[in-house]
Amino acid sequence: MTANTYDVIVIGGGISGLSAAKLLVESGLNPVLLEARNRVGGRTYTVQNKETKWVDLGGAYIGPTQNRILRIAKQYGVKTYKVNEDESLVHYVKGKSYPFKGPFPPMWNPLAYLDYNNLWRTMDKMGMEIPKEAPWRAPHAEEWDKITMQQLIDQICWTRSARRFATLFVNVNVTSEPHEVSALWFLWYVKQCGGTMRIFSTTNGGQERKFAGGANQISQAMARELGDRVKLGRAVYSIDQTGDLVEVRTVNEEIYKAKYVILAIPPSLNLKIHFNPELPPLRNQLIHRVPMGSVIKCMVYYKENFWRKKGYCGSMVIEEEEAPIGLTLDDTKPDGSVPAIMGKRRICEIYARVLGTEEALNPVHYEEKNWCEEEYSGGCYTAYFPPGIMTQYGRVLREPVGRLYFAGTETATEWSGYMEGAVQAGERASREILCAMGKLHASQIWQSEPESLDVPARPFVTTFWERNLPSVGGVFKFMGVSSFLALATAAGVVAYKKGLLPLSQPVL
Amino acid sequence: MTANTYDVIVIGGGISGLSAAKLLVESGLNPVLLEARNRVGGRTYTVQNKETKWVDLGGAYIGPTQNRILRIAKQYGVKTYKVNEDESLVHYVKGKSYPFKGPFPPMWNPLAYLDYNNLWRTMDKMGMEIPKEAPWRAPHAEEWDKITMQQLIDQICWTRSARRFATLFVNVNVTSEPHEVSALWFLWYVKQCGGTMRIFSTTNGGQERKFAGGANQISQAMARELGDRVKLGRAVYSIDQTGDLVEVRTVNEEIYKAKYVILAIPPSLNLKIHFNPELPPLRNQLIHRVPMGSVIKCMVYYKENFWRKKGYCGSMVIEEEEAPIGLTLDDTKPDGSVPAIMGKRRICEIYARVLGTEEALNPVHYEEKNWCEEEYSGGCYTAYFPPGIMTQYGRVLREPVGRLYFAGTETATEWSGYMEGAVQAGERASREILCAMGKLHASQIWQSEPESLDVPARPFVTTFWERNLPSVGGVFKFMGVSSFLALATAAGVVAYKKGLLPLSQPVL
Repeated sequence: MTANTYDVIVIGGGISGLSAAKLLVESGLNPVLLEARNRVGGRTYTVQNKETKWVDLGGAYIGPTQNRILRIAKQYGVKTYKVNEDESLVHYVKGKSYPFKGPFPPMWNPLAYLDYNNLWRTMDKMGMEIPKEAPWRAPHAEEWDKITMQQLIDQICWTRSARRFATLFVNVNVTSEPHEVSALWFLWYVKQCGGTMRIFSTTNGGQERKFAGGANQISQAMARELGDRVKLGRAVYSIDQTGDLVEVRTVNEEIYKAKYVILAIPPSLNLKIHFNPELPPLRNQLIHRVPMGSVIKCMVYYKENFWRKKGYCGSMVIEEEEAPIGLTLDDTKPDGSVPAIMGKRRICEIYARVLGTEEALNPVHYEEKNWCEEEYSGGCYTAYFPPGIMTQYGRVLREPVGRLYFAGTETATEWSGYMEGAVQAGERASREILCAMGKLHASQIWQSEPESLDVPARPFVTTFWERNLPSVGGVFKFMGVSSFLALATAAGVVAYKKGLLPLSQPVL
Repeated sequence: MTANTYDVIVIGGGISGLSAAKLLVESGLNPVLLEARNRVGGRTYTVQNKETKWVDLGGAYIGPTQNRILRIAKQYGVKTYKVNEDESLVHYVKGKSYPFKGPFPPMWNPLAYLDYNNLWRTMDKMGMEIPKEAPWRAPHAEEWDKITMQQLIDQICWTRSARRFATLFVNVNVTSEPHEVSALWFLWYVKQCGGTMRIFSTTNGGQERKFAGGANQISQAMARELGDRVKLGRAVYSIDQTGDLVEVRTVNEEIYKAKYVILAIPPSLNLKIHFNPELPPLRNQLIHRVPMGSVIKCMVYYKENFWRKKGYCGSMVIEEEEAPIGLTLDDTKPDGSVPAIMGKRRICEIYARVLGTEEALNPVHYEEKNWCEEEYSGGCYTAYFPPGIMTQYGRVLREPVGRLYFAGTETATEWSGYMEGAVQAGERASREILCAMGKLHASQIWQSEPESLDVPARPFVTTFWERNLPSVGGVFKFMGVSSFLALATAAGVVAYKKGLLPLSQPVL
């Protein structure tokens, strides 16, 4: 075995680890980066072949307010382009397709409209109570953490159509089911991305742009700059902090030593490592409790861009029980070549139904990536918190353990779960070490980022009516304000709708 | 590095791995057992010292229907004794202590009585629908898996006292909170232990007895018999199935080779191992999703057994918001020496309040074990399933992966989570390998166990009234059977109690 000594060992060659190592080198330190796979990029993964030119089968979208990843991309000359939204989007519901413009499909039924409006308004209002750097300190943290997003949706929404759309909103944003995730965690997640409009929008939102040539270029450029500091095929299996230097061992039987270590991997992948001494109890519990989402990302390629000809941009919001897909986006190249639609598996039939043409049944090429099978990602896009976990264990998410520091997008406080969060977390972890070494004041660990000039953010404006229209519950209340009977009836209606009435025979 | 070749490598030296290896040896095979710690026993852990003589700080209780662990104990001459329940139990609620006899505290308020009765009856009735070997195939599996136990409790219970007791019932049985666990999983868990009465009772239930001298004796006796096949301090970090033999590597740099491997560790600790090839997607997702419960087990020792003198047996059912403990049991030695009470942390004050004497404030000795900090257990007693996981991933819990077979109490179908389940799982995994080798017919893999003669089970009988009394909801329904108003009012009362009425301002 060989032993190599460095200032810092960075574990994980995704965007977070690479941006951590990059900042350490720029600060005059001597880091090494150990990556388990034979490639850098982690949850970003660009495939190049003649059918697709290039395609992102992992993290791909960027948008305004994601200023850190935009800064790094610009530094390496990686350009962005806008996802096509020129033509109409399609909202497919109850077997019919409705073209629309804007981030959310419009609602024509007045009750449904009030219900939708109230759903977004309520989620954003609740988000405002949640500190992005410490969701466990929200005034209602315990209460909201004890319920699943499904329960919150059932509490907020009075109409089936709002409930269905809220489910899709959870599915699409965190690749999990509403009944799997804590309401507190999901509300925090949306909030730290800038709210419901910012996270879900293409134009002016998280899906506004892609990198021309693929997202992996960013990681490759950083790796190129780091040179032979980046060691591929080095899965780490043990970290020993009992000596003067931290000792890290890899499955291919190497030993690395350093003053500090940054773990730039998802929290649950900390379990791949045997620690000496053992991790503290709360961290040991945390890493067992925050699984990664489940997603198979796929692209379907066609000979022609038939959807634009029909006046559709390629974005589909698909609401159908058991549909294998909820949201699609056009993935045609910026020059109009290689027509493609991004989505998830078993999808050609549904594309044909939604777009109303048999052409969708005849793709010429197909690419997919099942992130559920990746040992060294554990899933995609990001870790989720089941009910009860954030308030009990969240506070140790990025709390250093001896000479171990924690990066990875899960530890970010802005766009956690995205490439932007990966950069924020990686740079912050490096600055924590610089601070521990006395090279930086503690007040400089957390730094805000100037806005990208190329991708400016516009605020989302709400109308007077959006702010002040009553909720469906409010309407019922107003109508029955002086009458207990009316109120009880309303409660009866709701209880019935929620399946609560047959309480004596609960679920049998 | 040395390479040692065996028929089977068993990973994990708890009761499951040891009973697997024991059966393999008895079947004429040549196994080796690798244990990460420097002791056998896993989640059973007996400490010996002069203050306590001996004390079980891990799994300890056994009872009727746990025939496999009783068989093994008997084989090694390890005797059981009954946990003391001669005097009264105490139910502490709203600051007052009520002595009682029997498994559950009696309810004097008639509504609360109906509610309790209906709670146990409903849970057992739901459990009857759930196949113990395949809970994901229950007729209502999806529906029940989408809700937390908290939601089910809120649906079944009309009175606060039943809700509070149901919470304690979850806490005590699975060391988790009702809002953390899937209703389907918890109902299955109770069912496969024999129902609400069997799991919760001391006499005739899961807590009837302890092993004289401590539970660890069983593991030590098996390990002694296995001799130098048991290798301690061998934490496994990689399993390679790509060659003719499976290759297993340990942190202390040894290589073991075998035709088959049994993983007798909790599912989430599979993550400690780097697999080549990678695990299949569903198993890779499962092992990220089933954390272990959290418990600090502790024992408080007193100079005198003051509680028996006061007419209390030492069992306390403690219902108090924020109380650090829910259930205690006498842990005095069978000969009456070393008076002690088993519970959880920060407990002397509450013992004093419940038992009404200052003597409880003056313990003479204290022992505790925080299972949350154990890297190679991950927690205790057992893995729990958060909402949504059982139906999606449960079916791969013990599905072999190539030449890997899965034991550990989590993979059992009777008393999973207990020592009994550990034996069932270990022996079943060994028989799976014997079957794969052609030494056993597939129909013999799963074997039932004759009843222990020393610890016979008695059925739990329910009375006519317990079976037929209405639920609280039924009473309301009966009273309002011909009147919508009464029904709506009842719904109103419930909705109010559940905090559902202010629906328009959900939780703000």
